[in-house]
Amino acid sequence: MWERCFSERRARQIQRAFRRGKLTLLCLFMTVIVLRGTIGAGKFGTPVQDFDEIRHRLHSSQLSVPHRILIEEHSSASNAVTGKENSMEEDDPRDTSRPYSLGPKISDWDEQRAQWLKSHPENPNFLTPKKPRVLLVTGSSPKPCENPVGDHYLLKSIKNKIDYCRVHGIEIFYNMALLDAEMAGFWAKLPLIRKLLLSHPEVEFLWWMDSDAMFTDMVFELPWERYSTFNLVMHGWNEMVYDDRNWIGLNTGSFLLRNSQWSLDLLDAWAPMGPKGKIREDAGKVLTNFLKDRPVFEADDQSAMVYLLVTQKDRWAEKVYLESAYYLHGYWGILVDRYEEMMENYHPGLGDHRWPLVTHFVGCKPCGKFGDYPVERCLKQMDRAFNFGDNQILQMYGFNHKSLTSRKVKRVRNETANPLDVKDGLGLLHPHFKAVKMQI
Amino acid sequence: MWERCFSERRARQIQRAFRRGKLTLLCLFMTVIVLRGTIGAGKFGTPVQDFDEIRHRLHSSQLSVPHRILIEEHSSASNAVTGKENSMEEDDPRDTSRPYSLGPKISDWDEQRAQWLKSHPENPNFLTPKKPRVLLVTGSSPKPCENPVGDHYLLKSIKNKIDYCRVHGIEIFYNMALLDAEMAGFWAKLPLIRKLLLSHPEVEFLWWMDSDAMFTDMVFELPWERYSTFNLVMHGWNEMVYDDRNWIGLNTGSFLLRNSQWSLDLLDAWAPMGPKGKIREDAGKVLTNFLKDRPVFEADDQSAMVYLLVTQKDRWAEKVYLESAYYLHGYWGILVDRYEEMMENYHPGLGDHRWPLVTHFVGCKPCGKFGDYPVERCLKQMDRAFNFGDNQILQMYGFNHKSLTSRKVKRVRNETANPLDVKDGLGLLHPHFKAVKMQI
Repeated sequence: MWERCFSERRARQIQRAFRRGKLTLLCLFMTVIVLRGTIGAGKFGTPVQDFDEIRHRLHSSQLSVPHRILIEEHSSASNAVTGKENSMEEDDPRDTSRPYSLGPKISDWDEQRAQWLKSHPENPNFLTPKKPRVLLVTGSSPKPCENPVGDHYLLKSIKNKIDYCRVHGIEIFYNMALLDAEMAGFWAKLPLIRKLLLSHPEVEFLWWMDSDAMFTDMVFELPWERYSTFNLVMHGWNEMVYDDRNWIGLNTGSFLLRNSQWSLDLLDAWAPMGPKGKIREDAGKVLTNFLKDRPVFEADDQSAMVYLLVTQKDRWAEKVYLESAYYLHGYWGILVDRYEEMMENYHPGLGDHRWPLVTHFVGCKPCGKFGDYPVERCLKQMDRAFNFGDNQILQMYGFNHKSLTSRKVKRVRNETANPLDVKDGLGLLHPHFKAVKMQI
Repeated sequence: MWERCFSERRARQIQRAFRRGKLTLLCLFMTVIVLRGTIGAGKFGTPVQDFDEIRHRLHSSQLSVPHRILIEEHSSASNAVTGKENSMEEDDPRDTSRPYSLGPKISDWDEQRAQWLKSHPENPNFLTPKKPRVLLVTGSSPKPCENPVGDHYLLKSIKNKIDYCRVHGIEIFYNMALLDAEMAGFWAKLPLIRKLLLSHPEVEFLWWMDSDAMFTDMVFELPWERYSTFNLVMHGWNEMVYDDRNWIGLNTGSFLLRNSQWSLDLLDAWAPMGPKGKIREDAGKVLTNFLKDRPVFEADDQSAMVYLLVTQKDRWAEKVYLESAYYLHGYWGILVDRYEEMMENYHPGLGDHRWPLVTHFVGCKPCGKFGDYPVERCLKQMDRAFNFGDNQILQMYGFNHKSLTSRKVKRVRNETANPLDVKDGLGLLHPHFKAVKMQI
């Protein structure tokens, strides 16, 4: 870890931190974390590599929060809706004497929706008895990225999602509109999700996915039946959330939300910490006090979710599945250096640490100017992750990237006059989970 | 038109052209064109606005070809596969004593495909008796754009396509791989199209669409039944192609190709002018000599298609539909200034000059450094076209852009506790052309 400290950018960061007298505190923290890392892994049942995620992210967040706050204070008004980026949209100011609301209270959504589905059999909420209709929702700012290459990575990211979703029979909604100026930044997903659920009763599950998350297992199909009695599925660990109250005990960068009254109620309960300004600032302090290891910054949706589940466990926990059997969200820091090892030893379709479903570049912020990690490492690893996933698509057509770092592709299977005899190695050309008999 | 000449960038272009002594020739051309414009429109049955396309594009192409050739000579190696951008990939050089081939000759594709469809009823080529399974294919370079904002426009463009295709039940393949280094640039689509047709027998129509083309009518459904006896559909005019041999008598930036033996044969017949280097250069000269108004530059796929149809009319024309009843491709120059007028007088669903299905930004080249038009005009109009189409998506959810030039959105319909009673004005929320009854 100290070698990493001595990269050029880190050296500058450390110098600044030292001048502010934080280095001493950091060393103390590091000692504590290393000790806890030794003691704690067994107790929580968390695989060592997952605990690495927490250490990695704590280390970077401790150094980067000042940058993040600077960005959010100085960023110009924009309609940023990545789920991560900042926006300070100046619109008609809401009357703050009235509590914030995502919309008029609806109490009979399950009934409204059931009625609609019954009278619209041509728009079923299940594509097969076992496969729900899923809408994957993602997005980014309508403004060009401050970092010129940022949009290129957003483009590669959506291509990556298009590929996975095409193979798995999932539709995509790419948002570039800020629907509610008060709920800007990472909170923008809440009004959007509510709007889409209510507009598309045929959608059974809405899958929110951050723009900096990429599919790295193109074969893995989500275990839909596992979630038949749950309404919210996030990657995380029960102990980290309910016992430890750790702000990264779950991840809201990739989650499933069922289209139901329960979900509308959850969104209503989740939203109050979101309105920008004093509410969000004060809520941030509450969250930092309440949650373990959370740095000081304004309220974010992920911390607020942990807070909600912990403080209202009886109301929500029964229908929340914290999934750690595969990487519905996979922290990039512990995955990207292992891709070659994965290719050597494993195969697509596993979805877990052996071949992660999702590699999520938390903290990289390629669209902005300041991320939590060195930009070169982020961009290089995002290229590798993209190629790792893209190889699984290209192999269908007889091609592969020359290496995980190369944009170029090479032929790995000759052309043939009998293309339909070609073995579909990964079963992606005509996947069973997409097969349907369609008729009016 | 001369006022446009006096914009800053145009002034510099004109100065350079003058120094090269081309201005005189240009004036002569303009006089001829204006005269022909007066005489010719009635003869060809071409609406005045469509003939404006030809004049606009001739004017710009006369000024810009030197830039384009410079780019292609100096561009570094890249895997550019937009259908428009340049690439000079240095791979294992092919043995040029052997004629170029897209792949092993296949002569029984209709039979192979029919057999496969019969044994895979769960992957039908028609989603309903009237609606074929369509794969929309587009793409761009795996390299970041030379122009920093170029990737942002590619991102908006793919979001635009995602929206149209989601509403119309069409799947998308976004390509970022150069499959054949010899067929780089605009020719890269040929190996890609062949590969996708042969890999996806369930696809009935492949819809190629350039990355600089956007959907501006989200309601218009293609008249699939009109094409039931045709294999290739392009926007164009029979007279402009077969009588006039005009290189822009059709457009290969947005076309439909049926998955059939005929199409494989067409691709084989189309390809020979494509291989980069001497073949493409010499072919370019042939095309300029043969086609009307074509500037001097290397062979492009569009000119080659006109050449193919004219010189082998008996072989191909019967199955080629040149569509001019709606804008399967709509030249942006004659459309973008009329959007407000369209919104005032017409409505989505028309697809034609009143509300164009596709606005195609030919010549803008936002990803590169030099386009055929002033970059400011291109980018501003691309924003407007995007918002014009996006409004039709946003209105489903009760929002609209504040203006066609604004990224910001405003609410145009209040939230309600009965969202399913909301009128679906454009019929896009649950479109009839997407309704299916799906079961295994």
